Amino acid sequence: MNSPTIVADALRRPFPDVLASALRDRFGERFSTAAAVREHHGRDESPFPPTPPDAVVFAHSTDDVAETVRLCRAHRVPVIAYGVGSSLEGHLLAVRGGVSIDLSQMNRVLAVQPEDLTATVQAGVTRVQLNDELKGTGFFFPIDPGANASLGGMAATRASGTNAVRYGTMRENVLGLTVVTAEGKVIRTAGRAKKSSAGYDLTRLFVGSEGTLGIITEVTVRLYPVPEAMSAAVVNFPGLASAIDAVIQIIQMGVPVARCEYVCDRTIRAINAHSHTTLREAHTLFFEFHGSESSVHEQAELAQQISREHGGEDFEWATRPEDRTRLWNARHNVYFAGLQVRPGARAITTDTCVPISRLSESITGARRILDTASFPTLIVGHVGDGNFHSMLLVDPDDEAEMAQAERLNDEIVRLALSMDGTCTGEHGVGLHKMGFLQEEAGEDAIELMRRIKRAFDPDDILNPGKIFRS
Amino acid sequence: MNSPTIVADALRRPFPDVLASALRDRFGERFSTAAAVREHHGRDESPFPPTPPDAVVFAHSTDDVAETVRLCRAHRVPVIAYGVGSSLEGHLLAVRGGVSIDLSQMNRVLAVQPEDLTATVQAGVTRVQLNDELKGTGFFFPIDPGANASLGGMAATRASGTNAVRYGTMRENVLGLTVVTAEGKVIRTAGRAKKSSAGYDLTRLFVGSEGTLGIITEVTVRLYPVPEAMSAAVVNFPGLASAIDAVIQIIQMGVPVARCEYVCDRTIRAINAHSHTTLREAHTLFFEFHGSESSVHEQAELAQQISREHGGEDFEWATRPEDRTRLWNARHNVYFAGLQVRPGARAITTDTCVPISRLSESITGARRILDTASFPTLIVGHVGDGNFHSMLLVDPDDEAEMAQAERLNDEIVRLALSMDGTCTGEHGVGLHKMGFLQEEAGEDAIELMRRIKRAFDPDDILNPGKIFRS
Repeated sequence: MNSPTIVADALRRPFPDVLASALRDRFGERFSTAAAVREHHGRDESPFPPTPPDAVVFAHSTDDVAETVRLCRAHRVPVIAYGVGSSLEGHLLAVRGGVSIDLSQMNRVLAVQPEDLTATVQAGVTRVQLNDELKGTGFFFPIDPGANASLGGMAATRASGTNAVRYGTMRENVLGLTVVTAEGKVIRTAGRAKKSSAGYDLTRLFVGSEGTLGIITEVTVRLYPVPEAMSAAVVNFPGLASAIDAVIQIIQMGVPVARCEYVCDRTIRAINAHSHTTLREAHTLFFEFHGSESSVHEQAELAQQISREHGGEDFEWATRPEDRTRLWNARHNVYFAGLQVRPGARAITTDTCVPISRLSESITGARRILDTASFPTLIVGHVGDGNFHSMLLVDPDDEAEMAQAERLNDEIVRLALSMDGTCTGEHGVGLHKMGFLQEEAGEDAIELMRRIKRAFDPDDILNPGKIFRS
Repeated sequence: MNSPTIVADALRRPFPDVLASALRDRFGERFSTAAAVREHHGRDESPFPPTPPDAVVFAHSTDDVAETVRLCRAHRVPVIAYGVGSSLEGHLLAVRGGVSIDLSQMNRVLAVQPEDLTATVQAGVTRVQLNDELKGTGFFFPIDPGANASLGGMAATRASGTNAVRYGTMRENVLGLTVVTAEGKVIRTAGRAKKSSAGYDLTRLFVGSEGTLGIITEVTVRLYPVPEAMSAAVVNFPGLASAIDAVIQIIQMGVPVARCEYVCDRTIRAINAHSHTTLREAHTLFFEFHGSESSVHEQAELAQQISREHGGEDFEWATRPEDRTRLWNARHNVYFAGLQVRPGARAITTDTCVPISRLSESITGARRILDTASFPTLIVGHVGDGNFHSMLLVDPDDEAEMAQAERLNDEIVRLALSMDGTCTGEHGVGLHKMGFLQEEAGEDAIELMRRIKRAFDPDDILNPGKIFRS
């Protein structure tokens, strides 16, 4: 069930001509069945082979999305939301065909309300774009998955990134959503109050639902004042375990680190090659501290002291904005740097997250498991949250290698589940983790999810075949 | 629909003898139909008249709850979870009769994992009990509604309190739940990882569902290290607007205040009478600051400076634990102090929450509306979150007064909704706010909630008749 080779679906049906005509009438050149366009919308960053939709609609508005859903529903044809195509688990592959609704042209920042610490954007706005538009306001939006993902996609995947240890994930930072339902109705899940006890939490039900319960077209997020002071540091450790033990202690002591990332020695080598940096090829922690001048100083002192107690050395500080940016760009490009370690390879990426005290066992266990691999493997992690990623660089055409990778992936996930952890901290389930979710949640919980799915989408047209078998 | 006089429900049916026998066989003396016991379980802190269940089961375990639900389901008899009876909106009134499942004897702290910053408790553990048991560990649980509520009830109501401005609400602080479903199955909604993207967010769907989707029997929460330093302050202002404007600026500047409460001059008088304090009878802000010594000092300086710019004066500091405790006990007792302003009165409590920039308009608007009342009214607020409560002290036997109170309540809620706010920041919907929720969420969103309800509870036995008309 977790094998990336199983994507063909017997439920794929021919695309109705009458629907194609209706969509062409409505959208003109914004409707396409061209092979290149379909191909582009049938691939993500997962190891799965491309699985194109039958057609693509480029939406400009919530109404466009609603109209597309209504037309498709009349023919029971699947609809799949598409942001920038950066999902890692096959979320957007059209396993039953249908229409990919490309939201990337819905890229307007609709409102910035710094006085309320909120902003509302169309789903296609990316995280970098939002922060660019916030420049000069004194506020920023912290959630930063590796890719320059769209806010709609980030909400749908319950994404996070390097800042989550301090600022939370999309779960904590989405205040409300505009969503198109399976019937093509438009709802708003919440107002802009910071907290609410008004009925079922529809906002958080759609966050992480991967396009299977509705299509997110607008996102209202929390903003944060740009801290008075920021400082970043890089620290090397003699081994994996010592680096992680330092992290665990820093978190347990409640040091409010903004970022706390582990990068393994092999990944540092890949970063140096890709980003032309000269970082020492060792087990490394990247820190960032936010706050007032004195608070940043205090946090940094404490982190440094704890790191030293665990053998950390060679502290390098980056307080100038350009140095910090270079550092974090290098960290953000790890995925692409990693891919270059083995040209032509695809990455199978694990995403386990465990209670913080179990992180050392979990990550050293993963390292042991990965050391049996016949292909290159890397580890990086949002370790302050107990979350890390292994990158398994496989030849997608080598079946034995793919099978080996899935076995190792299985072992790493099982280890995390045995520690009361999760199979996915931030990447979502998509196609790839359906079996793991079943194991993690158990049949009775999956049955409740299935009932929600049926209640919201009785015709099973919203990104069908994902998360669990419906 | 919002009138507290409408609680009789045509759907109330006779209690089956065969069910009474089965429950008595199973639970012995822990099953009761005694009038006094039923009466006790049919009242909360809402202005509604008591509406007793037909019977009460005192549960000792998740299995007890599951067995009760299974037996009741066979007869389509309602089940209502009961914690400490502190709900404010009629959540637990047995409008269709049925069995109240009293969880107060499920009061064991099952696990404290300071190394993971988590604890797991049975649903009947209260917030004070949990913090008592955490003494000496160096960790605490911050969520503090006015009453010493049970953790199960707090989760079911999506409660918060004075610390939410810094630590979030139950939405952010529940990691996972054990829940008994309408079929009497037991599910666990999540493991203990700090973040997860594994499928639909069942945890946050049950948080705030007010016992209508399942019965929460165990709660896993986040803990926080006790801050190195804490300091509290009381500041008086010349008027309501100036106090609130100070708060708005403090929040917009990102000062990480732990608590930031407004108490109106009339309420201070009530507190002085009730708690034998000698606070100055003025518009007052209560602050608390958490952090390192220097960070607390910095935060306090900044809050003081901003307060002064808005006319704040008479700063009183409380850094000794006993002084802080006295101060916050006085604040926590506001509800009971308020009730004594008019002996024999019941309180109708508003709970609106608005985006922070609109708080001044919202709260001064509420003050103007309340000033037309023929009975005493008070205002207190978790103003750092944009949330405040008006207490309308009415004679529950005076129909004209009750009607007037509902009219004023309506006006205050409409004002908040016009500002993109919510009718309830933390008290929940219960019986009292069903009409407001309809207005706030809109029919299409309510329809999705209704579908979730039907999917989880097709026989409508879980706390029926609450939140929305099913």
